[in-house]
Amino acid sequence: MQLGMVGLGRMGANLVRRLIRDGHECVVYDVNAEAIKALEAEGATGAGTLAEFAAALRPPRTAWIMVPAGLTGQTVDAVAEHFAPDDVIIDGGNSYYRDDIHKAKELATKGIHYVDVGTSGGVFGLERGYCLMIGGEPEAVARLEPLFETIAPGVGAIPRTPGRDGEPVQAEKGYLYCGPNGAGHFVKMVHNGIEYGMMAAFAEGLAILDKANIGREALEHNAETAPLGDPQFYQYDFDTAAIAEVWRRGSVVSSWLLDLTAAALQEDPELAEFSGRVSDSGEGRWTVLAAVEEGVPAHVLTASLYERFSSRGESLFADKLLSAMRKQFGGHAEQHAPKAG
Amino acid sequence: MQLGMVGLGRMGANLVRRLIRDGHECVVYDVNAEAIKALEAEGATGAGTLAEFAAALRPPRTAWIMVPAGLTGQTVDAVAEHFAPDDVIIDGGNSYYRDDIHKAKELATKGIHYVDVGTSGGVFGLERGYCLMIGGEPEAVARLEPLFETIAPGVGAIPRTPGRDGEPVQAEKGYLYCGPNGAGHFVKMVHNGIEYGMMAAFAEGLAILDKANIGREALEHNAETAPLGDPQFYQYDFDTAAIAEVWRRGSVVSSWLLDLTAAALQEDPELAEFSGRVSDSGEGRWTVLAAVEEGVPAHVLTASLYERFSSRGESLFADKLLSAMRKQFGGHAEQHAPKAG
Amino acid sequence: MQLGMVGLGRMGANLVRRLIRDGHECVVYDVNAEAIKALEAEGATGAGTLAEFAAALRPPRTAWIMVPAGLTGQTVDAVAEHFAPDDVIIDGGNSYYRDDIHKAKELATKGIHYVDVGTSGGVFGLERGYCLMIGGEPEAVARLEPLFETIAPGVGAIPRTPGRDGEPVQAEKGYLYCGPNGAGHFVKMVHNGIEYGMMAAFAEGLAILDKANIGREALEHNAETAPLGDPQFYQYDFDTAAIAEVWRRGSVVSSWLLDLTAAALQEDPELAEFSGRVSDSGEGRWTVLAAVEEGVPAHVLTASLYERFSSRGESLFADKLLSAMRKQFGGHAEQHAPKAG
Amino acid sequence: MQLGMVGLGRMGANLVRRLIRDGHECVVYDVNAEAIKALEAEGATGAGTLAEFAAALRPPRTAWIMVPAGLTGQTVDAVAEHFAPDDVIIDGGNSYYRDDIHKAKELATKGIHYVDVGTSGGVFGLERGYCLMIGGEPEAVARLEPLFETIAPGVGAIPRTPGRDGEPVQAEKGYLYCGPNGAGHFVKMVHNGIEYGMMAAFAEGLAILDKANIGREALEHNAETAPLGDPQFYQYDFDTAAIAEVWRRGSVVSSWLLDLTAAALQEDPELAEFSGRVSDSGEGRWTVLAAVEEGVPAHVLTASLYERFSSRGESLFADKLLSAMRKQFGGHAEQHAPKAG
Repeated sequence: MQLGMVGLGRMGANLVRRLIRDGHECVVYDVNAEAIKALEAEGATGAGTLAEFAAALRPPRTAWIMVPAGLTGQTVDAVAEHFAPDDVIIDGGNSYYRDDIHKAKELATKGIHYVDVGTSGGVFGLERGYCLMIGGEPEAVARLEPLFETIAPGVGAIPRTPGRDGEPVQAEKGYLYCGPNGAGHFVKMVHNGIEYGMMAAFAEGLAILDKANIGREALEHNAETAPLGDPQFYQYDFDTAAIAEVWRRGSVVSSWLLDLTAAALQEDPELAEFSGRVSDSGEGRWTVLAAVEEGVPAHVLTASLYERFSSRGESLFADKLLSAMRKQFGGHAEQHAPKAG
Repeated sequence: MQLGMVGLGRMGANLVRRLIRDGHECVVYDVNAEAIKALEAEGATGAGTLAEFAAALRPPRTAWIMVPAGLTGQTVDAVAEHFAPDDVIIDGGNSYYRDDIHKAKELATKGIHYVDVGTSGGVFGLERGYCLMIGGEPEAVARLEPLFETIAPGVGAIPRTPGRDGEPVQAEKGYLYCGPNGAGHFVKMVHNGIEYGMMAAFAEGLAILDKANIGREALEHNAETAPLGDPQFYQYDFDTAAIAEVWRRGSVVSSWLLDLTAAALQEDPELAEFSGRVSDSGEGRWTVLAAVEEGVPAHVLTASLYERFSSRGESLFADKLLSAMRKQFGGHAEQHAPKAG
Repeated sequence: MQLGMVGLGRMGANLVRRLIRDGHECVVYDVNAEAIKALEAEGATGAGTLAEFAAALRPPRTAWIMVPAGLTGQTVDAVAEHFAPDDVIIDGGNSYYRDDIHKAKELATKGIHYVDVGTSGGVFGLERGYCLMIGGEPEAVARLEPLFETIAPGVGAIPRTPGRDGEPVQAEKGYLYCGPNGAGHFVKMVHNGIEYGMMAAFAEGLAILDKANIGREALEHNAETAPLGDPQFYQYDFDTAAIAEVWRRGSVVSSWLLDLTAAALQEDPELAEFSGRVSDSGEGRWTVLAAVEEGVPAHVLTASLYERFSSRGESLFADKLLSAMRKQFGGHAEQHAPKAG
Repeated sequence: MQLGMVGLGRMGANLVRRLIRDGHECVVYDVNAEAIKALEAEGATGAGTLAEFAAALRPPRTAWIMVPAGLTGQTVDAVAEHFAPDDVIIDGGNSYYRDDIHKAKELATKGIHYVDVGTSGGVFGLERGYCLMIGGEPEAVARLEPLFETIAPGVGAIPRTPGRDGEPVQAEKGYLYCGPNGAGHFVKMVHNGIEYGMMAAFAEGLAILDKANIGREALEHNAETAPLGDPQFYQYDFDTAAIAEVWRRGSVVSSWLLDLTAAALQEDPELAEFSGRVSDSGEGRWTVLAAVEEGVPAHVLTASLYERFSSRGESLFADKLLSAMRKQFGGHAEQHAPKAG
């Protein structure tokens, strides 16, 4: 099947590679001519402009937009100008699902179909395949199934879920039609919200292990820190890299994120390369907004988001105010040790 | 190698089975004679009393205690009465690591070694192997390595962590000497704390998906619930079983807990069998106590514990008080819809 | 000064009473004729229709809208139809500040000024005065100052903040111009977010006191609940009503909410009248949305909101899923005690 | 009545002043001779050693220990050496209530009574009076009532709680017998836990107000921060000092902590003097330990404690690990802006 790819960053380029490998035909466009050249060398057809791009695609056309989040809307519009009724534009990035709903309505006035695809897989996707969460009109999506089947991981070596038998369904092959426009990005949004929560669970737990030798420190008795009740219980020097490794086999927390944690700690148990400023890129926030609007308690997902905010110094005003109140009622001066981090 | 097992519940019996299969010799004891008989039929040597049990073991003896948490201490003591210097008693249950420290000191006065082993694996351990986290004197632990090697999953099919090469180390085979007494249960405790956090991340996220059709409901405009700003954005009927399934392949959240979640939702997407009372069994609490004493923030692990308390109705007094305050300052009457759940 | 009041519920009626008492002239309208009659008896001028209402007001007119949240927008529009350029419409309810921004723009096209006033005070406001947080064009707001001065509590007996001297400023008299349209409701929104957090702090703390006798209970040793380490430390039968009372004088937590808590517990320490379903009415949610969008960590305010969701059974799906996972990996059956609450 | 005070820091000295003013007789001791001299000048009887201290007190003696938390135990022991059966030793500091239980048992073997008094009031207590929460044997406590009556604020100008009439009870006078040994410090502990929660509620809320102008910033579109959906909604430059001030009158959040917040922001709205390292001194931690052991959800109190840990850089390991995971799965480099704070 033929697909046009707009945006040849790591993700877009790797999608093209997976498709070409599996016999699909790819037309590629990027603002960076080098990126086009590189993929031409691997068998793709390059297009120097969006007009050429549209011309190189046989109707009904399919374009997959894979550009940075802030540019997606305008890129979709630019492609749509060259597209015709019954063509399909796929937004494969991390857009807010509400924007999908608006954009789909807009494009519908021109007869163009809009499909939102949440794509998970990161740098490993080229080999491992990408997990795809898809939203849009059922007919438009159905037409694209050969592409999704190639991009997704497929059934692979993963044991079948008990109770599932017969021919594997979509979900077992790693892609899923989730519902009308926005559904794909909604599911991807919540996926990332869960990811934040799981990451935080590992990070907090390993931090508790990392500090299990606190009983060894001669803690000064000052007003800043409560004295440790029983130093004898905190005398362990744990090897966090080895612990992450041992959990990879047979434990309840075994997971891909644990595999990555083990790899990171194996590389450097001190994590000296990192300063601890943790980014967040939208989905975690939107997940919390959805939880609040739906009235669903999401203590864990929200706390993991806020921990990221705090890691970037965003609790500074609140912290200063707490110190100021303490000074007001108790005359407590702040302890002057430099703030870590 | 020879091992004595005290406690032949599902976990103890399966450990014996794994050991026998791999050529080890097992002496078994339980208060329930049927349980002994069953394992005798599979090749174990039964003992009718702890005296017989001790007599059937060749010095230096090794006993593995696998009884319910509340009975562990007294069982260890009872076994110790029949044991001699240089014998080893293993606590393979979910004891509090502080009890290990106390118990090890007690047994040391008799020359008996105490080894604490955190054991993860659940009902799947018989086939999958058990992840073992071990604490105790290094020499006593070293002697037991053939047993641990059999019980643990082994290297298996799991890809090696980048940067690890040469002969696989302990951790890669699924067991790890973590440090002095209590270290094994400390690591297992934090493992379970992380498990709570991961479980909550999935539960919250899927709950948000489950309620993504709230825009369809005609929400009454009353003082109890804030009106939904944009009902159009909550019109999705998600198939949570299919979503859990699709995430199993290629996504960032793929994990054993996700596999189990997919299985549970495949069995019954309505989860009608469950009332939502979620138990907690100690490790989650102890993890939070450690976080607080170490001064390590653990928002996520703690919230996941508190959510379990709430699921059992433990927030009732606080909730009533909130309603009472609202009545006091605003004259708000409680809405009378029956409390769900 | 003259003011028209639309909406004569408890809040609207009490505002009119405070204004009349202080010599202002009030024109009143409500869909309920009885409510109009009642206030006519107290000195207000009743209006049978919005046309009469507008006619009874001298230009430039001032109308204060005090109707249920869901009806505010349409009521403002209906009043605006009878109003003329330079008239002012005040939204004194709990509107979302974003709606203020939109509405102000709409009314500006007709030359009508829109002023948003967050009003705190509850059932005690008639005597105590109402704390007013005000947004809008500075000139339109300035014109209304005599009204605000009457409605607000005034300087009163509250000790002056150190560093403030000379003529008391607005804030010291209990009302404040906060900024352009929406500013009043934004500040009120955050006020309520803080209120949720404070209420939860009291509720949680008193719940901990309430259960401090848990060491007396013969806790069964089962898999559901971790055994209590040291029952001797939980043998207190606290009198929560007396404790709330004692904190009212000289303690750091003394506050109006504590006064109300003391009153509620004095009325009935068992709070038997309440089922524990706690409503939330918008501001708490919007505060969290703002925190997330601003990237400001708000663990406490958010947790207090989620606790309200949970009190209404909104964590049921997540809780069931947790039980289902526990059954999957550990074969744990749910404990069958009926869920409290 | 006669009282001996050991420890003449600000708190101890002010207690002595309140007692002398009200006609009580005070014997004072401190390791610092200057502190003794200062109070002798105000009418107290100084004692150069604990032996002199004991000799100057008429049996049955009463000593109030008011020394830093870490020294309380040994000071009580030292005083006890000079005391006789039926004497009373009061621990007025912030001891862990469990230590009270142990200490009371020890002293009981000598016939000495031990009374634990949680004392709230801070630097304002001298004028405002101290809120007292008292634990111990009822008879021993009853004997001390004249002292408590002087130290506590008394009924004062605070309006009576509805439903309370007749002669004011203890709690209305600002002191309360809470129960057996440890009860006083248990109630004080929870008081401080609530205080942490309330402080955090104000700090978070005001931080949200402080950042309500974020829509003005030209946010770079990068992978670190999610783009702000609607900058138009975050254009407010709030005067947080004025807002704290206006809430002091008539609002639901009016409280002593708000008074102090208003004072701090009036002093310096930028809080430039503070670095944001917030101390915690034991009670907050112990409150959380109690919540966990009782099985009572305490999301808010716990989050407020963890926010303090984070303010001191204690989340650094966890944050680094999150960055490391992000790099592993997504190749995301950390953003290099220096961590604020």
